[in-house]
Amino acid sequence: MQLKKIAIVGVGLIGGSVALAVRAAQPDVRLIGVDRDDANLDAALRRGVIDEAAELADIGDVDLVLLAVPVRQMPALLLQLGRQLAAETIITDASSTKQSVIAEARAGLGSRIGQFVPGHPIAGREHSGVAAAASELFDGKNVVLTPLEENSAAAVELVRSLWRACGANVMEMSAAEHDAVFAAVSHLPHLLAFALVDELAGRPNAKSLFSFAASGFRDFTRIASSSPEMWRDIALDNRAALVREFDHYLSRAQALRDAVARGDAGEIEALMARAREARNHWLAGQFDYFKDESA
Amino acid sequence: MQLKKIAIVGVGLIGGSVALAVRAAQPDVRLIGVDRDDANLDAALRRGVIDEAAELADIGDVDLVLLAVPVRQMPALLLQLGRQLAAETIITDASSTKQSVIAEARAGLGSRIGQFVPGHPIAGREHSGVAAAASELFDGKNVVLTPLEENSAAAVELVRSLWRACGANVMEMSAAEHDAVFAAVSHLPHLLAFALVDELAGRPNAKSLFSFAASGFRDFTRIASSSPEMWRDIALDNRAALVREFDHYLSRAQALRDAVARGDAGEIEALMARAREARNHWLAGQFDYFKDESA
Repeated sequence: MQLKKIAIVGVGLIGGSVALAVRAAQPDVRLIGVDRDDANLDAALRRGVIDEAAELADIGDVDLVLLAVPVRQMPALLLQLGRQLAAETIITDASSTKQSVIAEARAGLGSRIGQFVPGHPIAGREHSGVAAAASELFDGKNVVLTPLEENSAAAVELVRSLWRACGANVMEMSAAEHDAVFAAVSHLPHLLAFALVDELAGRPNAKSLFSFAASGFRDFTRIASSSPEMWRDIALDNRAALVREFDHYLSRAQALRDAVARGDAGEIEALMARAREARNHWLAGQFDYFKDESA
Repeated sequence: MQLKKIAIVGVGLIGGSVALAVRAAQPDVRLIGVDRDDANLDAALRRGVIDEAAELADIGDVDLVLLAVPVRQMPALLLQLGRQLAAETIITDASSTKQSVIAEARAGLGSRIGQFVPGHPIAGREHSGVAAAASELFDGKNVVLTPLEENSAAAVELVRSLWRACGANVMEMSAAEHDAVFAAVSHLPHLLAFALVDELAGRPNAKSLFSFAASGFRDFTRIASSSPEMWRDIALDNRAALVREFDHYLSRAQALRDAVARGDAGEIEALMARAREARNHWLAGQFDYFKDESA
């Protein structure tokens, strides 16, 4: 399936990078940008990221609409798109949680829900806005689609073709599995990092603490420089899975704390050795090292 | 005070980097290496990191001995050095905990405890061994000395001159303060990262989890690739301060988990915003942003 005209709603880091990547791969595709921030949209036009700027109400006859906006804006956008879009237009998104977005899409699109193919590109940076966009952002990265039973094979293939044009590896899983996986490997670590920085920053001796924090602390807390609004929404949207992950983690961390308190050298070293071994296999791309008993 | 002859016990990442930095700054200093690993010591000699290899028992007439070994080796080394060293020789160390090392030094050196000036360079990498050593490892980094009341001003100054030759900023604080600060900004984050990787690696669906873990997870867990033996020892040596930090942190993380569970958007966003603000000030070197009420 050939993409001819794409509307990108939210021409920020993600939307802008998709536009740049598609343009590089398929120069004939027409790219229409929509953004609530006029200055950002002007910057996108000036930089040539998009071909034209439009209001949401004016994007009628496009092949594909990519919604790359903060999650809280999705319900209103989906409601409006459900009223105005042609029956052939496919909608996809780039948000980090899937079950809540699908519920909003069902509410907003109603009987047109088959036109919505949910997606999540696994790429990001702490920086945001079109200025941070880069055509190679998705190159070699994973994009997870969580298709609905109402989606046609052609609709899913159209969205796949978008992400393949960006150089990404496209995978599919259920929305529930997606949300459980990303609660564990992304959402929880973000919240743990935010919690550590906040806890230390509130101390009476915070100046001394931060004066001696070094590169290990910098890397561990890098994700605590992410957008509070975005991560607040992710935490709330994926609340059930995230709370489960917190409980797993806090229990393990408490057990390690107790092992330290009683001086259990064997348990401490065994845990650390298992972690390092696992991480080294992960870094080497040796995924067969890991258990796959979920089915 | 002019350094002429230095013995480096443990010619690994830290000891080797000190040797390379001192040689670059002061080519006339004679560098004697001691290492329990003959192959590593040979490599250090071949690479020109040290001028000669020696047994510990043979290093009598040096100005300074740097102990850059795993903490568990310190008691035996200190006991032997206490028996053999000239009264003018100063000993320092590079270990990550200070109160426990000082206690061991008092036991090993007895009335010669004034010859031991405790130190901790705040620089490291996941990699170890002399192959990872680099002359610029300490350039612009902090080195914390925790001098004893038995140390002469000249002894402290000699150790300061060693680290200044390596390009480091030398600071002083009490051993208790050192251990509390590093429990918070270094030791706790390491244990939290080890715990997360181990917890996820043990899951039935670990393969799926690690297949989708991305750059945020990579940075958050980088320190979980550190040496289990080294970090086991640090955790045990700084046990009291580390358990206090665990308790502070687990309480904050539990509160954040509870805020997510009850959908408290305001509290979640406020915590994240405070954390990001603090981290950004830290990255910009704006330490006056932080509270300094510890006195």
